[in-house]
Amino acid sequence: MFISFEGVDGSGKSTQARLLAEHLRAEGTETILTREPGGSPGAEEIRRLLVEGGGDRWSPETEILLFTAARRDHLERLIRPALAQGATVITDRFADSTRAYQGAARAELGDLVEKLHALMIGIEPDLTFIIDLDPAEGLSRGAARGEGEDRFESLGLGFQQRLREAYAEIARRDPGRVRVIDGAGTPAEVAARVRAML
Amino acid sequence: MFISFEGVDGSGKSTQARLLAEHLRAEGTETILTREPGGSPGAEEIRRLLVEGGGDRWSPETEILLFTAARRDHLERLIRPALAQGATVITDRFADSTRAYQGAARAELGDLVEKLHALMIGIEPDLTFIIDLDPAEGLSRGAARGEGEDRFESLGLGFQQRLREAYAEIARRDPGRVRVIDGAGTPAEVAARVRAML
Repeated sequence: MFISFEGVDGSGKSTQARLLAEHLRAEGTETILTREPGGSPGAEEIRRLLVEGGGDRWSPETEILLFTAARRDHLERLIRPALAQGATVITDRFADSTRAYQGAARAELGDLVEKLHALMIGIEPDLTFIIDLDPAEGLSRGAARGEGEDRFESLGLGFQQRLREAYAEIARRDPGRVRVIDGAGTPAEVAARVRAML
Repeated sequence: MFISFEGVDGSGKSTQARLLAEHLRAEGTETILTREPGGSPGAEEIRRLLVEGGGDRWSPETEILLFTAARRDHLERLIRPALAQGATVITDRFADSTRAYQGAARAELGDLVEKLHALMIGIEPDLTFIIDLDPAEGLSRGAARGEGEDRFESLGLGFQQRLREAYAEIARRDPGRVRVIDGAGTPAEVAARVRAML
């Protein structure tokens, strides 16, 4: 089974991905926990090109190509082999992140994102959890743990609100695959909601 | 005007690109000489991912995505601005290199290469010179200047012969844009043929 976690910055999706992996392992299910961008040695090198440098280092189109190159490597070198061996793969972000971030930043590129995904990636997770949280709450969580604030400041609260809307739209378009989880409360409370849905 | 030079390894295309740039500048035409992969700061960083490491570092599909990301950056940051200012741009390799190398290595990916090019690049040079040379002659030239041999050995003479065929096929498919130049003789002799064709 191939499962992805998505959500705005500070929503707790990385924590929830980890907690579900720990839960499945404790139940005896072989589980690989990974993340994007990155997740395989080649994709991690492409990640460095994406996260270093200023916000205008790449055009949106070049950035989408680099994310897709990293995803293709991640898929070929880690996700597909693990699934072929019968493991469950949990990834912190997958193609919905590209859809949502581009949707929030440059909605007119949505068609390009979908065409490139269809041409070069072609698969979706079996199940996607969107951890839904008011971005203002995500911001205060990030500030509390002494990180995340820079990212919020650089992208802005308005951007995070558009991002939340873009995720909600993805859930509406693909209800068979995508489940929206209320991200309010403690990590253990949210993890219980994820497990109940699973 | 946007001009590209293509050809097998050792064909002399880089020398011919430089000689044509020098000729046009001597005539008073503002001319930018560039190359792929690379040509802009971002594309040069992607180039490092492509040229470093072993031959199986990337799958053919991931490699095509990285070449396309580098080309998009090169196009946006160098080629289009230079053309918009009225300069002539001469590039040592462009999209035909991806077509020819993939055609020689994995012909079944030809359709993917064309679709990705149409989606993310979309333009062709106004004029393309393919410097045509028997690969065995290219190999001896490379050996004479103490370089190129590693590349020939790693790819093989048979690969270079398939590459030459792939370039010939590109010329047949697009006779309005592509001119095949006989690469035999001295650089000055070949340069005279290029200028006569131009």
